[in-house]
Amino acid sequence: MMNEFELIQNYFKSLPTPRGDVVIGIGDDAACLRVPQGCSVLVSTDTLVSGVHFLPTWNAYDIAYRALMVNLSDLAAMAAEPCWFLLALTLPTVDEAWLESFALGMSDVIQSFGIALVGGDTTQGPLSITITMMGLAPVDKALKRSGAQPGDEIFVSGELGAAALAVETLNENNHPMAMEKLLHPKARVDLIPYLRQYATSAIDISDGLSADLNHLCVASNVGACLMQDQIPLHASLELALHGGDDYELCFTVPAEKKKQLTKDLKQKGLKCYPIGVIEEEKGLRIEDADGNRQTLIPKGYRHF
Amino acid sequence: MMNEFELIQNYFKSLPTPRGDVVIGIGDDAACLRVPQGCSVLVSTDTLVSGVHFLPTWNAYDIAYRALMVNLSDLAAMAAEPCWFLLALTLPTVDEAWLESFALGMSDVIQSFGIALVGGDTTQGPLSITITMMGLAPVDKALKRSGAQPGDEIFVSGELGAAALAVETLNENNHPMAMEKLLHPKARVDLIPYLRQYATSAIDISDGLSADLNHLCVASNVGACLMQDQIPLHASLELALHGGDDYELCFTVPAEKKKQLTKDLKQKGLKCYPIGVIEEEKGLRIEDADGNRQTLIPKGYRHF
Repeated sequence: MMNEFELIQNYFKSLPTPRGDVVIGIGDDAACLRVPQGCSVLVSTDTLVSGVHFLPTWNAYDIAYRALMVNLSDLAAMAAEPCWFLLALTLPTVDEAWLESFALGMSDVIQSFGIALVGGDTTQGPLSITITMMGLAPVDKALKRSGAQPGDEIFVSGELGAAALAVETLNENNHPMAMEKLLHPKARVDLIPYLRQYATSAIDISDGLSADLNHLCVASNVGACLMQDQIPLHASLELALHGGDDYELCFTVPAEKKKQLTKDLKQKGLKCYPIGVIEEEKGLRIEDADGNRQTLIPKGYRHF
Repeated sequence: MMNEFELIQNYFKSLPTPRGDVVIGIGDDAACLRVPQGCSVLVSTDTLVSGVHFLPTWNAYDIAYRALMVNLSDLAAMAAEPCWFLLALTLPTVDEAWLESFALGMSDVIQSFGIALVGGDTTQGPLSITITMMGLAPVDKALKRSGAQPGDEIFVSGELGAAALAVETLNENNHPMAMEKLLHPKARVDLIPYLRQYATSAIDISDGLSADLNHLCVASNVGACLMQDQIPLHASLELALHGGDDYELCFTVPAEKKKQLTKDLKQKGLKCYPIGVIEEEKGLRIEDADGNRQTLIPKGYRHF
């Protein structure tokens, strides 16, 4: 008695379920999740629309991968451990090869991050994917955008600009590393313990460093100055400052904790980059190697 | 620096927020929600696509109202108190009058049910609405589809078939009560205390009584026999059995508790209808007033 879209949901039931805290999973009216005492629930949702956030020609594997990473990145930016997700999938037609590839992309991310698909909805319509990701953080320990203080050091978690380079050169296809970053961004869930220990605020870089740092500064009621030659560039400064889609994290750390953080990260083979400092004066500034400062105008995200 | 779709999210920030357990709401990378000790989190997601689940000509108020009700109904069917929701809204263009009407529909439901909008995403694309609804139930007290036992009485929470009549006669527009039921279904959150006290299983009637009772029976590994003249009809038996979109609840209660349930409901001015009995024999049957039984084939949901 099921229609083919309901059958798909049954199909997704076969994905790995690496969690014991799913009391009721896919197949009932709602999922039921056990929350440990002392934890709050974090939740975020992001929609990827065909032709806006990805090209219809992309592999379904890559679309699924990216849809999950974008949402995982939101939780990482809150220093919340990702646990469970729901998938609302709208498909024009039922294409089994496409679905198999899509499920494989999900399965790989599920296994890498130990998250579980606990519910969803499959409907007919123009291709779009909405993921709702849920996670856990110790009560009142979720990391907001609004905690940055003047004097805090600004860090980014990796090179910036690769994904934007890939978007700019989509048709050339001769920047394989940049394309890999665009298709398979890696949500920085590995940094959660360090964020919890050291950071005063965080945001993920989806719209671009200038736009997202500006969001963080506005929320924190502060400003920032970036040191131009400290920003880890993939290609150009322009792309690093204003290009989106990298899904690295930008976070702030009290100046006196900078050394210890760097040491702790190094011990685990990790590296984050100090790129500037939070200031009382609102707005963004950038300083070159000669100490010349200029105003930095944040640029919005440009869809491709 | 915000684009117009980001501005919309700011716009939704002005909706009423009737809950004190939202630690972080709209505007950060994720929402943070406080979960009381002894409670599990329930979560469900449903997408409404323009032209599939509603007509593009509908008022935005009605679309918002319905999108929330469909999701509230899923939580009611689990006997879970609805608390928080996220809105993933995909819009072809930014139409302020449409958005105002949409926000008003949400605001009315928010205030009626004491739920809070805690996050979301607004993107450009073909009109569709994905709501993720979250709620609470005492640990291990969420009501599944799979708990029905042979001998249990089957109840429905109200008249069936009105929404299907409205769908069938959309162009005539001469069944105002049926149209009201289609546009403004009422999630049966009011029944949650009774479900928790008396029910062994429940499901909401979105696809139609026959289809949804069948889902419940399959999940519970049982069958059912309906008493034809006990089914509360809005129009015809056909529409009551096979028409979707009513969003009443179907639930099962041990036979010995039937009287007490009915009494308890009556005290609060409520009424549910006993319409049959769970049987060991798989499949659905229907019995007329003369005691003649025949097999009832569940029919799938037909989108309009």
